[in-house]
Order: sequence, then C-alpha cells, then structure tokens
Amino acid sequence: MASTPTAGARPARAPYAIAPPAERAAARIVIQYPQPAVDDGRYPAKRCVGDSVMVAADVFRDGHDILRAVVRYRGPGDPDWRETEMRPIDAHLDGVRWAGEIEVDRVGRWEYTVEAWTDVFGTWRDELERKVAAGQHDLAGEISEGVLLLESAARNARSADDLSLIEHAARALKDPAVPETAKHDTALGPELFAAVERGQERHGRASIPALKIEVDRVRAKFGAWYELFPRSWGGLRGVEAQIPALAELGFDIVYLPPIHPIGHTNRKGRNNALRAGPRDPGSPWAIGDETGGHDAIHPELGTEDDLRSLTATARRHGMDICLDYAIQTSADHPWLREHPEWFHRRPDGTLKYAENPPKRYQDIYNVNWESPEWPALWEALLDVMLHWVDCGVKVFRVDNPHTKPFAFWAWLIENVHARDRDVIFLAEAFTKRAVMRHLGKVGFSQSYTYFTWKNSRYELTEYVSELAYSGEQEYFRPNFFANTPDILHAYLQHGGRPAFEARTILAATLSPSYGIYSGYEHCENVPVREGSEEYLHSEKYEVKRRALDGPLLPLIKRLNTIRRENPALQYFDNVTFLDTANDALIAYAKRMGQNAVITVVNLDPDRAQEGLAIVPAHLGLPPSFTAHDLLTGERYPWRIGPNYVRLEPGLRQAHVARVEI
Amino acid sequence: MASTPTAGARPARAPYAIAPPAERAAARIVIQYPQPAVDDGRYPAKRCVGDSVMVAADVFRDGHDILRAVVRYRGPGDPDWRETEMRPIDAHLDGVRWAGEIEVDRVGRWEYTVEAWTDVFGTWRDELERKVAAGQHDLAGEISEGVLLLESAARNARSADDLSLIEHAARALKDPAVPETAKHDTALGPELFAAVERGQERHGRASIPALKIEVDRVRAKFGAWYELFPRSWGGLRGVEAQIPALAELGFDIVYLPPIHPIGHTNRKGRNNALRAGPRDPGSPWAIGDETGGHDAIHPELGTEDDLRSLTATARRHGMDICLDYAIQTSADHPWLREHPEWFHRRPDGTLKYAENPPKRYQDIYNVNWESPEWPALWEALLDVMLHWVDCGVKVFRVDNPHTKPFAFWAWLIENVHARDRDVIFLAEAFTKRAVMRHLGKVGFSQSYTYFTWKNSRYELTEYVSELAYSGEQEYFRPNFFANTPDILHAYLQHGGRPAFEARTILAATLSPSYGIYSGYEHCENVPVREGSEEYLHSEKYEVKRRALDGPLLPLIKRLNTIRRENPALQYFDNVTFLDTANDALIAYAKRMGQNAVITVVNLDPDRAQEGLAIVPAHLGLPPSFTAHDLLTGERYPWRIGPNYVRLEPGLRQAHVARVEI
Repeated sequence: MASTPTAGARPARAPYAIAPPAERAAARIVIQYPQPAVDDGRYPAKRCVGDSVMVAADVFRDGHDILRAVVRYRGPGDPDWRETEMRPIDAHLDGVRWAGEIEVDRVGRWEYTVEAWTDVFGTWRDELERKVAAGQHDLAGEISEGVLLLESAARNARSADDLSLIEHAARALKDPAVPETAKHDTALGPELFAAVERGQERHGRASIPALKIEVDRVRAKFGAWYELFPRSWGGLRGVEAQIPALAELGFDIVYLPPIHPIGHTNRKGRNNALRAGPRDPGSPWAIGDETGGHDAIHPELGTEDDLRSLTATARRHGMDICLDYAIQTSADHPWLREHPEWFHRRPDGTLKYAENPPKRYQDIYNVNWESPEWPALWEALLDVMLHWVDCGVKVFRVDNPHTKPFAFWAWLIENVHARDRDVIFLAEAFTKRAVMRHLGKVGFSQSYTYFTWKNSRYELTEYVSELAYSGEQEYFRPNFFANTPDILHAYLQHGGRPAFEARTILAATLSPSYGIYSGYEHCENVPVREGSEEYLHSEKYEVKRRALDGPLLPLIKRLNTIRRENPALQYFDNVTFLDTANDALIAYAKRMGQNAVITVVNLDPDRAQEGLAIVPAHLGLPPSFTAHDLLTGERYPWRIGPNYVRLEPGLRQAHVARVEI
Repeated sequence: MASTPTAGARPARAPYAIAPPAERAAARIVIQYPQPAVDDGRYPAKRCVGDSVMVAADVFRDGHDILRAVVRYRGPGDPDWRETEMRPIDAHLDGVRWAGEIEVDRVGRWEYTVEAWTDVFGTWRDELERKVAAGQHDLAGEISEGVLLLESAARNARSADDLSLIEHAARALKDPAVPETAKHDTALGPELFAAVERGQERHGRASIPALKIEVDRVRAKFGAWYELFPRSWGGLRGVEAQIPALAELGFDIVYLPPIHPIGHTNRKGRNNALRAGPRDPGSPWAIGDETGGHDAIHPELGTEDDLRSLTATARRHGMDICLDYAIQTSADHPWLREHPEWFHRRPDGTLKYAENPPKRYQDIYNVNWESPEWPALWEALLDVMLHWVDCGVKVFRVDNPHTKPFAFWAWLIENVHARDRDVIFLAEAFTKRAVMRHLGKVGFSQSYTYFTWKNSRYELTEYVSELAYSGEQEYFRPNFFANTPDILHAYLQHGGRPAFEARTILAATLSPSYGIYSGYEHCENVPVREGSEEYLHSEKYEVKRRALDGPLLPLIKRLNTIRRENPALQYFDNVTFLDTANDALIAYAKRMGQNAVITVVNLDPDRAQEGLAIVPAHLGLPPSFTAHDLLTGERYPWRIGPNYVRLEPGLRQAHVARVEI
C-alpha cells in the first residue's frame, strides 16, 4: 500500500513539464463544502453553549471503495482533538453528503475538521460478501488477500480481545483443513469486522483545513430586551429599584441609551428643535461635556458605584445591563481639546460636524478614522468599553457600526472577548444587507433588523425566510425590536392595542431575541406628525415619568414565560410557515426535539379574521394532536392538514399553541 | 490621508492583547463573492475563445463614501494587467453588486482580480452638490477642502489638458475675488470631474487574490459528434474516405472507439458471449495483445501513417478525430509482462481481473494506482496520450475516468495542455453527480450526461436547468449524446423514427455539444432483449457494413447548419423554458445578443399534440415577431404571450424557429 515513488526502478526518460506530484498521489478522497462554514471558512460560524452542531461535508473518491469519515473537533484551549463518527445522509444528493453531530459546551472559539479514509477491510469484506451471495466459489485468491489484511489488523488491534479474535480468524483463513465455506463465514463475521475496524489504519487519509465555530453564551441569541431612558426612572438607582419587577416580567436585558454627560453646544430641544430651552436635557447621543466623555456618567444619573450596584443587582436576578456604545462626541467632549488629531479638520482649521447632505448634525462630531493617530484612537475606544465591562456591563448596543471600519470592530471585539468572552455586541445598523451581514461576520453577536417595517404576511414570510434559510443564519442573529425611540411604525400608530399585541407576539415567537422600548407597553402611538416614525415629545429630547404599569405587561410576561418553557422558541432557523387561506392570518411552526409550537396571528388589528392553519405532513407531527394555546389555556383538537381558526381583535389576537399528544 | 501609525505620538499605555493591526486599518473596502469562480477560486472557471466574460463582485465599505472598481485581467503569458471599469448592477441586491466585461481572445489560463477604491474627489463633489442643491451657502470650508484635492489631482494629471483644467479650477477656488456661486459651478463642472478622476490616486485601494479562467478553443463547448467503429468502415483509410461527406453533414468531430490490438484471452463473442467464436473480432476496449498495447494500432485498421493521414484530412475539413483513452488492458497486453508491478497481484501471485461483484470482466485488467511504481505508470500513460497527440489527435474521449484518481487527471491534462493547449478531453463518466462535477473541476473539457435517460418534459426541464443554473455551468460542459454503443434507450426502441427525430432535435438545440453513434441515423432500435439498453448484434463485438445513407441525415445536416448560423445555439446556460399548456410539448428559448431561437418539440412519437408556446415578457423580445421555422422555412406571426402550436409525428415533429422582426 506504499505510495512513495521508488525512482530507482523507473526507466530513464525525458523529464515531463510537470513531474508526478508525490503528495497528490495518495489523495484520492475529496472532502468539500463543509458546514457550518461562512464564506468558505473565512469567518467563524456562530453557535451557543449547549448547542448540538450538525457538521456535514461532501465526502467521495474515485472508484467504488467504501469510505469512513469522522468529525474531529476541539474546544478553546483543548490540546487534543476529539472525534465523532459521520454517516452518509441525503441519498438524493448522490449519497456523498456525510454528517455527524458535536456538542459545544462552553464559550469561545471551537475548531473542527472532517477526516475521511478508505475502509480497506470493509471494501474487501463487502466484495467477498457479494461474491459469496452470487454463489462464486473459487475465492482462494480473495481469502489470501484477507489473510494479509487480518495480519495487518492484528498489529493495530485495540485490545487483547480484538487481537485474539483477529489472530484466530487469520489462522482459520490460512488453515488448509478449514473448508472454504467456513472460511467465508469467518471472514464475514460481524464481530471480526468490528474488531478490525477499531484498529484499522486510515488508508489514504484526507482532511480539510480546520473551520471555526464561535460559541457564545445563550443570551447572545435568546433574550427579552427592555429599553429605558434612566433619566425617566430616577437615574441608575431608580432603574435598580425596577430590576426585581423587570425580572418578574421575564426580561433578560435592560438596555440604557448613553449614560454620559450631554453636550450643551447646539443642544437639541424638545421634538428635535434646533435650539434647546434652558431646562431641556438634550439627546443622550450628544456625548460629552467639559466634565467628561465616554468614560464618565451623567451626574444626574448617578455614579460609577451606582452603575456597579445596578449591574450586580441585575446579575443576581439573572439579567444583564446593556449600555449604548456610540462613537461620536458633542462639541464639548474633552477629546476635541485633548485629541484634536482624532477629528476631521478642514484646511481652514474648522472641525467638521456630522452631516449627510442636506442633513446636518451640528451637535455631533465624528472621529476621523483616517487620522494618522488612529492606533491611539482605537486604543482609547477600547479603553472606554473595557472600563464599562469592568463595571459589570456585559452587553453593548453599538450605535451605527456601519459607518466605522469593519477592521476596527473585528479588533475591538477580539480584544474585549480576550478580556471577557461573555460580552455581547448588538449592532444597530439599518443599511445595505451586505453591510449588516458583514458586521455579523466580523464579530457582532446580533443585529437590529427590518422587522419593524415588515407587517404584512408576505413581507414577514419573505424576510424571516431570508434570515432563516439564506445562509446568514450561520452568523447573523436577528433581534426583533417591536419599537425603538426612533421607530414608531404607522401600523402601531393606527392599529391601537390589537396592533401592539400582534407585533409583540410576532416578535417574541419569531425571534429568540426581541425587545421593546418603554412606552410600548402603554401602547404609546402618537407620532410627532402624520407620516413620521418619530414619537411626539420623544424621550430622546425630554425627561418623562415612567412606571412599570402598562396594560400590555401581562401579555409580555406570559410570552416571556412561554419562550423560556419552549425550546422551539429559542431558535430562529427552525421556522416553517403554514398556509392559512387568508392573507390577514400568518401561521408558523417551530420545532426543537420533542417541543413544537404553532403560532397563528391575526395581522388585522380592526377585524376578526377566519382561516386555516394548514399543518403540512413534512413537519413530522402526529396525524392528530392537541393544540394547547399557551396564552389562554384552551385546547383544540388539531391535525395534519387544515385546522379552522378565528381570531378577533380585543378578544384573541393570536394562538401560541404547543403541540401535545 | 496617511494611515501608517506614528507610534511616537501615542501616550505610553499598557499593551493590548492584540495590537491595532497596521495593515488592517486602511482596508475599509470589502470585495467578496467574485464571479466567475469555482469553489471560491480553488478551480478555474471555463470559457472559450471569443467569449465576453461578465466579471462581478460585491464591493462595499463602511459609511457613505463613493467607490470605484475595475476588473484587472491578463491573458496567458501577458506580463501586464489590463483594466476595465465595473459599474453597480442589480439595485435589488443592496446595490453592492458590481460588474464589468472582459474579452478572452486566446486559449490558455487567464487571470483576473477586482480592485476597488474610495473616490475621494467624487465623494467630496457629491456632498458639495447636495449642499448647493439644498441651498446651503456657507461652504468656504468645503471649498478649502476642494482646493487641497485639486492640488493633489494636479500632481497626478494624466495630460497637459487635464493639468491645465485642474490648475485653473484650483486657482478659481482659492481666488477671493471669485464669487461663491461661481466657485461652486467650477467645482461641479463635469469636465473637471473627468480630468480629476483620470489621474486620481486609488485611495484605500483593495483587491482580491487573482482568480483563474481556463480558456479553450470553441470546439471544447460547441461541436457535432459522430461515433463510428472504423472496422465497420474499412479501417482508418475507409474512415478518411468518409471525411468529406461527414464534413458536408456538418459534423465537427469523428470519434473512434479504441483502435489498438484486441486481446484474445477470454475474448468476448457476439452479443457479449463469454466465449468468442474463431472469427469474432472482440471488443476494442479489451486493449492489447502480444503485438502491442495502447500505443499500437490494430493491424486490420491500418498504420500510424494512415492515422496521420486521417487526422490531416479531418483538419483540412475543419474537423477533429477523437480517440478513445481507456486505461485497461486485456490479459495479453505487453504491460502485464513488462510491468507486472503496475497491476493488482494477489498474495498467491495471481493477477486480479476487473470486477464489480457479482459482475466479472475476465477480459480486462485494471492498473493498480497504489502500485509503488505509480510515477512510472503515470508517465507511461502520459506518453501514450502524447504519442497520439503527435499523430494529430486533439480530442480524447476518456473511458470511465471516475474510477481513476482525480489527481492523475489533473496532472495528465496539465501536461498535455503544456504540450498542446488545443487538446479536448471528454469524460465518459456516468456516476455520482459530485464525482462528475469534480472531473470537470480538475480539467475535463466536457462530459457525457444523463440526457439519454431524460425523456419527459419534467425530466428534461429539471435536468437542463440544473446543468445551466446550479453553478456547475462554470466548469461542467455537457455533451448530449442521443445514443451510444452502450445506450439504446427504451424511448428510441419503441418510438420509431419520430422518437429519433425528437431526440436529435433536443440534443442539437439544447446542448452546444451533441453526438450520435452510427446506426442512429438509420433509426436502429432493436435491443438485445426487452428491458435491455444494449443493441442486438452490438457493434462492440462484431464488424458491420456501414455507409452514410441513413434517412435521418438530411435532418441532421439541417440542424448542424442551423447551429452554426445561430450563436444562441452555441451556448448552454442561456436557455429559458417556456410554458406549453401540454406536457407532451417542450419549448425553450435561447438568446445570444440579437439572435434568439425558440424550439418546440413534440415528445410524443405516436400522436399529434396541440398546445401553446407561451413567450414570457422577461425574454425581452418585441411584442410581436415572426417565428421563422428554420427546419421547414415556414414563418408564423408570434407574440409575447401564448402562441398556438400543433406538431404531428411524420409531418412535423418540432419547430426550431428563429425570432425575426
């Protein structure tokens, strides 16, 4: 079986343009298209702790020999590789697709590869079996080959038992006194086969370069978010007082817009007025004044100790505090004085404020990424984040990451993860899909989406299908916010409470990560003017009095409980849309292991809608089952095929039904 | 605009786990998913001489700056790269997809890359334009930036005219006597823009590793093949005598099964009988006897001079002779004596004949690719092919390449192409799709397909769509043989002449490469037994008397003329299937530039079928046009939308209609 050239035996001949390549000759096995993989392995795929990862690849070779394949994998810091067997799947794909499953049980960077080899003994045994079955008798040559294979196997036997079995068989095959048919029986014995396979050399072994899987804690994909402006809740201490109630409601992450000092030069007034009144607090995104910048806390919100106390209390309740990370400064930010070299300066010496002509943001300055001093700028920005990480903040909502260099984010996230691998990054990017995807590739844990603008059945089905099936599900985790301080969709403005209920249920059941911005639970729905998605009296520019007493909170609490109790709702790409025979009704099933949940939502906030939830056979549910509505407790006898549904605003906007048998 | 770190200016600080990467900072532009590309550039895409290649890629960066992009490319041996501009296409894909076209005008390996940069002046000009349009007036800062950009542009001006234009503009922008609005007009002048762009430095330039395009002569994708056994035509000289007639019929390639001496040990008799009669000639694929092997010619067929004469005559008629390349030997082949180390030998010393249990091929021995002497074996096999290349053979039909190592084929093809880049390799592989594809990736010019077994409308549509659109069209070129000595499909056995007509028209119009094996034009359709696809009295085992007088030849000649006159039929992946409202009718359009051909075939050999050819608007044809049937000369007034069709066996089996206006 040697495959090294023995040049001495070859006749002298003219040299070829390209000599036979020694290393290629043995490589008869092709392994291609491994999954999970992002851009051919250029970026890691993402998973969460506890996930079972299906690793698949095409494995084939020339000829008809039998192959074996394994996944080899290791977790972060593991010196050794583990192995798990792969088996052929999907006969309709030529039978060349193999798969095996691995478990990822801790955060960090995992690696895997696929290794395959020719099963020499298995191939010989299979041919012998077919010849015996065909009644061929003159198999002495075959048996003599088997002896050689068994003698080789004996040298690699994994145990004394295996060795004894193999040697016994080899002796029987060599013994002229043993009848041919008994030799065949011996050679084909399944125990012998297993013993030989255990120790078999991996003939013509092939593998592929290792691929990466970035494993996050579960909250990176699964969490209920609540956004609030701490100045409307009594500052950081006031927020801390709400933590038990927020935990009781089932929220996982409380996201605070920037908590830093706010600039006063060109401060925006109420309703985004160009001039602020004397008591207007300004937008928290105009970061920094003479007293401090990105690493300071607005004195009216509290102190660093207050923040540490808040994050500690949240942690005790199993929750996270999320800070905003917005790389921009007000005109009064200390960096403008201390590091003018980090900002855009015109030839006439003036600094450039942010603008996207004809829009101007005179209260905000962007940093100059092409500054000669960019390494110091990068490090300062990293310092800022590490400072908040040290205060117990493990989640950041990153403002407009798509206007900063991808390379910066890759570097920042890598460094922060080197300090604390639990940190989660949410990208607030509403831009070209390719750019949003690329932010996921370079390391963002999750991203805002266009969910807010997808309100019809067609829009939701198309958009969610793309997020779930187009390949981006390997690295792009959606977060479905039902509203934000910037986005009050017309559907909510005009649909009243039924619209808010529908959107909450959609967000919470379609996406493992979803969120609301406070006021939503009160069904706040008045825009600054008709046609705008901005709130009237937006909290971005004024202080409100807020309390956790909105009428939607019982529904939200119920949904958060349902989400935790049903693993099917903790994954995104396990969704299957069902026909409903009515475009005002959307229905979808999610399944994970034994758990299956079917959601049907009436998208019409004004009228009752009747239709069907048509359960397709390929979901693998039993022919008839109980649909147990987890919102109301009602139970319906459902089945594969059409199931009548009637949903009436005010009475029942949706079913969220667990499949029970 | 420098982006190199100037470490001296940075404050001393604790080192980071990962320092800011100098080379990453400038890289703000992402270029991804270039096309054409096979497996992320691992294998070359294929094109033919004269093709216009659309090169596309995603090009984007963070932020809103304007980008520019070019394709850079060079042909084989070119020391320098040429460039052609790319422009954004497909706004629905985020507007990040760019494309440009290049021409490949000679055989060999071409390379291309995509280069993109930030258009600094264009971005500045665009913002200025938007500000002026918005009525903003205080633009002195912007103008002072423009002066700097123009001064930089002046240093790179491409011509004296450009320089003069740029310097004049810079002076105007600096001149306090020039009114602001005149400065704006100057800055926004289109001629100034063009002059600056011509010389502009490529700011933040990014590119991708070069990708490969393997360019073949046109016959690698477009040709009409005729297979014949020379022993039935009077040997090589007899074949040569037919060349003018074959050329007149429009055939491009005459393919000869193996022309070597045939073994006599275990020679197969008529109808594949296990024992040959004394006068049975044997199968040409049992290669070699005591007088010679793969580099010899069967004495009854002629001499090497006869072959050289044949290939020369073919070349004079614009045709190619194709030889069979089958790596297997009869028991009498000289290599078994001279190089027993190249063959499988059992421990008991016996040689292993070919088998796939329970089938045995006692007249054939396979080589042992895992022989320690494999380099000598590879070189001998290359010698064989180069020998025939030297005799003027530029096309090889390779027998069962899927049972030999891929690495061998890659090496063989590379070496043969180093000697003669015009050589074409046809893979005779009927196996797993992934294996067939892989043979294309490692270098085969074209491949047999499953066309023979695709006879219904659904089968044809599905199969051709996969070949045309699944990505394999970049490297896998189908050859649609309507029959072979091994495959007489039941459709032909039972359908009579109309079936033969339908299949000829399908093969010739669906695939640029198509072929028939002689006898087909006589509608030979008797199988060795019901249920078999083997011919009765198969020519594989006996000598026939053949002549070019089959009743289908006029149709074939007409089709070959139509194919040559209509560029649309010289490409594979330009096919669009049309609805017909009748499953017995298949219709498809092909378009290339101004040339469009619509083919409608009645798949039912027994009955007339009526239906529609529904021309979709997206084909871009005029609302009404003339369908000029190139088989009959008839002209029909057709239009976008449904067009009535009636096709009757015996009278008219198909339309092959050119679109005329």
